[in-house]
Amino acid sequence: MIQDPAYTVEPWGIRETHLELENLAQSESVFAQSNGHIGVRGTLDEGEPAGLPGTYLNAFYEARPLPYAEAGYGYPEAGETVVNMTNGKIIRLLVDDSPFDIRYGDLEEHDRRIDFRSGILTRMALWRSPTGNTVRVTSERFVSFSQRALMAIRYTVEPTAAETRVVVQSELVTNEPGATMTNDPRTAAALEAPLEAEEFLGGDARAVLVHQTKQSKLRAGAAMGHEIEGPAGTDWHSEAWEDLGRTTINSTPGPGDPLTITKFVTYGWSARRSVPAIRDQVSAALAEATHTGWDELVAAQRAYLDDFWERADVELDGDAELQQAVRFGLFHSLQASARGEGRAIPAKGLTGPGYDGHTFWDTEAYVLPLLSYAAPEAAAEALKWRLATIEKARERAKELGLGGAAFPWRTISGAECGAYWPAGTAAFHINADIAQAVLRQCDVNVDPDFEEEVALPLLVETARLWRSLGHHDAHGAFRIDGVTGPDEYSAVADNNIYTNLLAAKNLRGAAEFAERYGEAGEGLGVDPEEVASWRDAAEAMTIPYDEALEVHPQSDNFTKHARWDFDAVEPDQYPLLLNYPYFDLYRKQVVKQADLVMAMVICSDAFTPEEKARNFAYYEPLTVRDSSLSACVQAVMAAETGHLELAYDYLGEAALMDLDDLEHNSSDGIHIASLAGTWIAVVLGFGGLRDHDGMLSFMPRLPERLGRVCFRLGYRGRRIWVEVTKRGTKFKLLDGEEAVRFRYFGEEVELGEEGLEFGPPPPVEPPPDPVHQPPGRTPQKRRPSR
Amino acid sequence: MIQDPAYTVEPWGIRETHLELENLAQSESVFAQSNGHIGVRGTLDEGEPAGLPGTYLNAFYEARPLPYAEAGYGYPEAGETVVNMTNGKIIRLLVDDSPFDIRYGDLEEHDRRIDFRSGILTRMALWRSPTGNTVRVTSERFVSFSQRALMAIRYTVEPTAAETRVVVQSELVTNEPGATMTNDPRTAAALEAPLEAEEFLGGDARAVLVHQTKQSKLRAGAAMGHEIEGPAGTDWHSEAWEDLGRTTINSTPGPGDPLTITKFVTYGWSARRSVPAIRDQVSAALAEATHTGWDELVAAQRAYLDDFWERADVELDGDAELQQAVRFGLFHSLQASARGEGRAIPAKGLTGPGYDGHTFWDTEAYVLPLLSYAAPEAAAEALKWRLATIEKARERAKELGLGGAAFPWRTISGAECGAYWPAGTAAFHINADIAQAVLRQCDVNVDPDFEEEVALPLLVETARLWRSLGHHDAHGAFRIDGVTGPDEYSAVADNNIYTNLLAAKNLRGAAEFAERYGEAGEGLGVDPEEVASWRDAAEAMTIPYDEALEVHPQSDNFTKHARWDFDAVEPDQYPLLLNYPYFDLYRKQVVKQADLVMAMVICSDAFTPEEKARNFAYYEPLTVRDSSLSACVQAVMAAETGHLELAYDYLGEAALMDLDDLEHNSSDGIHIASLAGTWIAVVLGFGGLRDHDGMLSFMPRLPERLGRVCFRLGYRGRRIWVEVTKRGTKFKLLDGEEAVRFRYFGEEVELGEEGLEFGPPPPVEPPPDPVHQPPGRTPQKRRPSR
Repeated sequence: MIQDPAYTVEPWGIRETHLELENLAQSESVFAQSNGHIGVRGTLDEGEPAGLPGTYLNAFYEARPLPYAEAGYGYPEAGETVVNMTNGKIIRLLVDDSPFDIRYGDLEEHDRRIDFRSGILTRMALWRSPTGNTVRVTSERFVSFSQRALMAIRYTVEPTAAETRVVVQSELVTNEPGATMTNDPRTAAALEAPLEAEEFLGGDARAVLVHQTKQSKLRAGAAMGHEIEGPAGTDWHSEAWEDLGRTTINSTPGPGDPLTITKFVTYGWSARRSVPAIRDQVSAALAEATHTGWDELVAAQRAYLDDFWERADVELDGDAELQQAVRFGLFHSLQASARGEGRAIPAKGLTGPGYDGHTFWDTEAYVLPLLSYAAPEAAAEALKWRLATIEKARERAKELGLGGAAFPWRTISGAECGAYWPAGTAAFHINADIAQAVLRQCDVNVDPDFEEEVALPLLVETARLWRSLGHHDAHGAFRIDGVTGPDEYSAVADNNIYTNLLAAKNLRGAAEFAERYGEAGEGLGVDPEEVASWRDAAEAMTIPYDEALEVHPQSDNFTKHARWDFDAVEPDQYPLLLNYPYFDLYRKQVVKQADLVMAMVICSDAFTPEEKARNFAYYEPLTVRDSSLSACVQAVMAAETGHLELAYDYLGEAALMDLDDLEHNSSDGIHIASLAGTWIAVVLGFGGLRDHDGMLSFMPRLPERLGRVCFRLGYRGRRIWVEVTKRGTKFKLLDGEEAVRFRYFGEEVELGEEGLEFGPPPPVEPPPDPVHQPPGRTPQKRRPSR
Repeated sequence: MIQDPAYTVEPWGIRETHLELENLAQSESVFAQSNGHIGVRGTLDEGEPAGLPGTYLNAFYEARPLPYAEAGYGYPEAGETVVNMTNGKIIRLLVDDSPFDIRYGDLEEHDRRIDFRSGILTRMALWRSPTGNTVRVTSERFVSFSQRALMAIRYTVEPTAAETRVVVQSELVTNEPGATMTNDPRTAAALEAPLEAEEFLGGDARAVLVHQTKQSKLRAGAAMGHEIEGPAGTDWHSEAWEDLGRTTINSTPGPGDPLTITKFVTYGWSARRSVPAIRDQVSAALAEATHTGWDELVAAQRAYLDDFWERADVELDGDAELQQAVRFGLFHSLQASARGEGRAIPAKGLTGPGYDGHTFWDTEAYVLPLLSYAAPEAAAEALKWRLATIEKARERAKELGLGGAAFPWRTISGAECGAYWPAGTAAFHINADIAQAVLRQCDVNVDPDFEEEVALPLLVETARLWRSLGHHDAHGAFRIDGVTGPDEYSAVADNNIYTNLLAAKNLRGAAEFAERYGEAGEGLGVDPEEVASWRDAAEAMTIPYDEALEVHPQSDNFTKHARWDFDAVEPDQYPLLLNYPYFDLYRKQVVKQADLVMAMVICSDAFTPEEKARNFAYYEPLTVRDSSLSACVQAVMAAETGHLELAYDYLGEAALMDLDDLEHNSSDGIHIASLAGTWIAVVLGFGGLRDHDGMLSFMPRLPERLGRVCFRLGYRGRRIWVEVTKRGTKFKLLDGEEAVRFRYFGEEVELGEEGLEFGPPPPVEPPPDPVHQPPGRTPQKRRPSR
């Protein structure tokens, strides 16, 4: 927990007013910019010092062998790791013979700020060189939402005292050192300089570099061009080499007579296109950006974000820090997905090399709930990406002896990259998570083409997987044995309730869609017998229950296992997986992250309120939250079971995951799912939104300190505006004129143009007992706003 | 299945009368010689052609890193692989300019034979060189039982037609190529030339080489010396280089005037001793051998084996092939263990590099039953080795968060080398297997020093492990969750019955010994509370039972799992683990090897006869025998449940594992446990021996074809001779005069000097139904003797 916060609190941005070298990497993640296609970390313009330099193109990866001391059938052999692509951010500055480097001379002022409404990262540095020259360096940087191949930078140097000779080198740098973070020497070797030059061109303030990855044979190009304004005598020239494009600018700016450089950098990659094609692609994108011009691009950036905030903003009154953090989460969720367009949303977005740049279930389970309501096109694109990988998933299922499609636990390309099957292949729930995201997307947005072309095949093939993965026992119950649920501290168990409930939804959803789109279903080989077998399996699904304890074991036998000896764990022994063997974690009652609790959120109607309360009270003392994916889910169930202050604390944990670096790894990228989960915590937790049965329902409840929570939901062509205060709840219908019916505290109501207003929600039934977390794992109480 | 048997059938040896190059590696294993300290594969004297050259010193290994694509806490980082040590067998021959190489010229006769009574491998080759000279090459080779550092060879060349110039090069060759068999390039690199020269000396028909392994820093020396007899003019000289010692002999033998070379090769290694110390150690051993002389060494070898056969021989009338195979198994079991002296018995003995030269539970569970009755000193030594590694096992337990000692699943040095924990660390039953072997050893042999110094600490520390590994559930039952039993197709399961029953025996045994040796127990920190807690856990041990099916599930939920779809498996898809993912094997009813069935053998008194019959009938159709450890155990339970012909077929499978190369990997070493298990199949199966409650019992039953089975048991200072025929059973007391009581078909009887004789055993109750194996997995019917 960072006690001296690195960032100032403000509603619409993140600001840093001093620079701590040891926090550089975290700030690079926090200030990372992305449009879902290009991602750049928030490194300093001059390149050094850097925590972890990084420039990423979605799905542009290098392949590497996965080693096994004892291999097994079906183990994936090829790993994939996101590649640090050509860095186009670098603008080096020489001030009268001294390189501008904040580690030397005096950094008299430092101010960096990312603005959630403009989308621009602004930096101002007032620096006195070792030889006594003081310059003000200002830069603005953005990754364009409107032109997805583009990053743009405006860079200004202005001496404060007298005319000063400066040299600016604006660069494209490939294979820059220090961009990997592995302990494995072989992996490091594979990624040390992953790109091989294929073409380089320079001249006329422009340069183009084309490279190819050595193993995966993906080809990428980067181009840069400049507009340069400076005092008379300013001149420049451009050159290129294999791993370097450089425009060198000589100028003598003075006070009031700055040198200003506008740099456009464009990127593109392809597994198929030729060197000339890639070269021309990035050159064309550069021409388009230049043609459009800085001002218009900035305006388009603003317009894109204004539209997003209209649809997505969540307002919290009473906790300025959380207000900021929630918007930070929404902003990064958008950045991770906006222009992915048929690509995945990695667990760390495009903000760092963490998790190798892989995509997990996080996308569907944590990010898509937000996107389906707030940025449905981005959600649709993410699911189209899954569909685009379905052939690989079918092959994987076949390799595993299963029907349908088995989507990978972790991947970039769609191929399984999980090298530890008990927490990889066995986590089949990812297939139900995808199905659940598909069903929600279709429920919230009206798009028959999507339903038929994307939703149907995804539902059908995942349903087939479940049908082949489970079996009926002697008593006719349908069991799914030997799988791993969300809680990775209990692997390879029978009848994980989360998995079984979501599989049942998956099976029912597939049945419904196959009947709704009969012809398309037939095209997929579905017949009435198969549909019936799905419904039958869903109906007969095993849901274990411990009659003695009156709780649901998260999987068979779970409640019979020994309870973890939490008292023996020292605070620095978390996360447990770094200090205890899997074998011990798996065989005891200890929960890494919400599992049954998550099932109670998603399949809210499968549990009575009393069961929810008992289960939540049972699992809270077992749940250590060694995953960033837990707190936001626990927040929802804490709120539903009346533990509103606990819910509030969990919301804080989810929202501040990266701003406070709670897991000590924000340095390698921010946690997109936890940040998107902030929306879940607020909207499902305090807004009480549920969407499990084709009709929205709300049971809003606020914790003491929040005076007002306000959010918007895109819903079937409308926008619903919801404002919750202590005095009552208001609903308004924005966009779309048709009234919408939903439930409010169980009562069906209709929201039309005139809006709806309700008085204070029914008083929260105080829970009989407080719930407890494992010793030392109680979430931090929300601190007072600073 | 080899249809054209490679070896001729004879009672006291294995003979090969023609040479198939593609079977070279298998024959090298079959003809491998060892005394438990030194092991040499049965390569041809001239070194080439070779299948897989190999010379091993027990526990002399190289370390190498164990790679993990996704590592976890507690994963062992260092692997261990047995090293191919300096080859002292090589005697190259140049016949009038032509190198003696059976791939060239004509091999007119070939005859190799290992004799189980002399212990000598004899070879005769009549070879016509490409230039038309014919020579008879004869060699005799043995690894001495009486001088454990020694291998000796007598090599004779005799031209058949005329005097012929020959050159003989008798060598020590280090780092010979082709001795590894890994697909992993990094492992291969580590083992390609693992030995670094430290000293070499040559001269006077002798040479010494001293080397050190590069990573594990173990030091080993090899010395050779020669006695040379030949026609006048025969002379020789010796030289040495870093990786080569060579004695070159020039001679011109003729018909009736052969050249005979007697070669003594001695070995030694140490982790601590210096280069001079090792050099002198092997030189001293060489001096001793030379001093003793060939004839006396041969006589001692014979005497050692005569004594062994007196104690160990098993006679079978009616099946000459099985008779041979049973003695082959006994002989190799002795070879693997005779002079190990504080070292392990690896799964492949010292006959090849298979399983990296590692020792598993095989030793205690399969080899020690034989040795405790037939070679108790060897059994004691193997257990002393375990004790010698107890500190590493304590550390491992601590690392895993457990009490007591956790012995490694696979190891050379005593450190855990298992890189896949579900079939490694989780297979905790190895600790109970050790305890069971300890208890049997103490039951069968009277040795209070062993009991106090070896048995007690092993029992106490393994009992502590179980006590910490299990817990009492809410109903007071003691559970052991999340472990892997012998069946590696069902891993990480709760309450594996095999594990639980043997753990209970372990706990009770520790309690009994701790009380019997109270002071020594106190020295280990045992107090009455701890003893009581062991007894309590043993009493409360959970033994799951499926009331509906009336069978024991081998672990919780097992009988609820889907049955494996055996009909979908093609014959070439066995072993399943090479063609199906672990996840699928683990979650279904399919059994790699006897697990519950093995529990019913060892803990015979924990099951009623009816339960045994039902369980056996239930598990037979699920058991695929993808392990060489299964058939011998199934033989025992098949016999007990009245399936005598099935038992006989299983005996055949166990006994012919390597002679018929049933698992297609005898090339990298023979399967010591399966061969020792042959004794189990005969003595426990057809002899009906059980020793589970401190008193021997017999229920002999013969299959149709076997007219007579006769075996001996060392027992508390006596030898019991047992002869089973269709007409009845005879017992005699050899050695030792005190009468012994045991049970015969449930009746307690006393065997004194006068012997005991019983009429035909009670007729075998024919089982109600035949049992079935999975399709295609029925053991081969015993073929008629050839």
